[in-house]
Amino acid sequence: MNTETSLESIPNESLKVIAFDVFGTVVDWHTGIARAVNELDLSVDGGTFAQAWRDGYQPAIQRVISGELGWTLIDDLHRMILDELLERFGITHLTDEQKSELNTAWYDLDGWPDTVEGLTRLKQKYTICTLSNGNLGLLFHMAQHAGLPWDCILSAETFTAYKPDPKTYLGVGKVLDVEPGQVLMVASHQSDLTAARACGLQTAYIDRPLEWGPNRANADRPDPANSYFATSLVDLATQLGC
Amino acid sequence: MNTETSLESIPNESLKVIAFDVFGTVVDWHTGIARAVNELDLSVDGGTFAQAWRDGYQPAIQRVISGELGWTLIDDLHRMILDELLERFGITHLTDEQKSELNTAWYDLDGWPDTVEGLTRLKQKYTICTLSNGNLGLLFHMAQHAGLPWDCILSAETFTAYKPDPKTYLGVGKVLDVEPGQVLMVASHQSDLTAARACGLQTAYIDRPLEWGPNRANADRPDPANSYFATSLVDLATQLGC
Repeated sequence: MNTETSLESIPNESLKVIAFDVFGTVVDWHTGIARAVNELDLSVDGGTFAQAWRDGYQPAIQRVISGELGWTLIDDLHRMILDELLERFGITHLTDEQKSELNTAWYDLDGWPDTVEGLTRLKQKYTICTLSNGNLGLLFHMAQHAGLPWDCILSAETFTAYKPDPKTYLGVGKVLDVEPGQVLMVASHQSDLTAARACGLQTAYIDRPLEWGPNRANADRPDPANSYFATSLVDLATQLGC
Repeated sequence: MNTETSLESIPNESLKVIAFDVFGTVVDWHTGIARAVNELDLSVDGGTFAQAWRDGYQPAIQRVISGELGWTLIDDLHRMILDELLERFGITHLTDEQKSELNTAWYDLDGWPDTVEGLTRLKQKYTICTLSNGNLGLLFHMAQHAGLPWDCILSAETFTAYKPDPKTYLGVGKVLDVEPGQVLMVASHQSDLTAARACGLQTAYIDRPLEWGPNRANADRPDPANSYFATSLVDLATQLGC
């Protein structure tokens, strides 16, 4: 896919709120986590460690969804995965404080090059909010760090349920007093959009070929049934006439 | 009390987060609600109606706290009180849409004259957040309307508990990853601050003599045990060296 595939701007009369997945869609977790790991000089490649950390995410969420774990925030899931990884990679010299500090690398991620411009343009016409499995504190700190101009921050923590639970997608409209069909869910993961669409939301797929770093192909593929396909948040803003 | 009583600026080394009560403390509900009612030409004095609506608030919250009502958002409590008031005042001609519209007058309140300047100054040094019994949607809409530059919006809805439940005061620190003593609760109601102080938070009382409008004295009085007393949010910013 290339940037030439973008649709022209077509008015979307019903749209009121745009809800964004965050990790991968809005911020570049791979580069940020790899950098934080490399700075600690752990004798492990930062990119490899970042991928392994993120690989632990879905199984951890699944343990909460299945009920094996009680309600647990992403900060704590990230820490559980980190402790396992440090053991797996034979890294034994970090203090508890250093581990806690490393865990907050997830707060200090940067947006993609198009993120701030795209969000700023979209915000002029629509209410923009997060809908992330990240916890509120993480999302607040990240917004401050990366200059993300959210109108509001909604999280799995807001609804005590993780995506793809319908409570999360339907919760956006409930909190902001609009119908599901007036909400556009934006993500670089088709599974997120498929679940949102089943709840009646509009959907926009953002292509992020580098989400997993330069050395691992991004296997995610968009469903043509999505309302939009965009190569960046700036591209999405253009398509929406912002 | 007068504006001359302000303390000099003294560094507050432990402070990280400032949490604000909203209705009365940050926004002038009396003027805003009175205006909305007067615009509808209901043959009732807008100020009287505003006071009566707000008078219904504490009893309504109390019905939730006591368990007589299940968890109910302020939007819905406001509507229940409104319906009672319309009956009491013999106002029978409003359509359901007009009642819903009037209920959102609580979204469109303006800050006090010092609000935006005070928050903007405090935000340069501290994380500023709401801690209001208002629901998330209400607080988001209000922030957009009144230009309130919150770093984050926390609500009773975040914790599924109404102030003065300790879960709300302690929840601020939990979400933002700071100790209770690193949080300053700001309110124009001593009961709110007394409950916050019992949870270990610092407290600042903002004097709002006009909270209930020009025709009803504000009977609220600050406890000298509060960490700060200020005549405005600008005054508080000055005291905190912002």
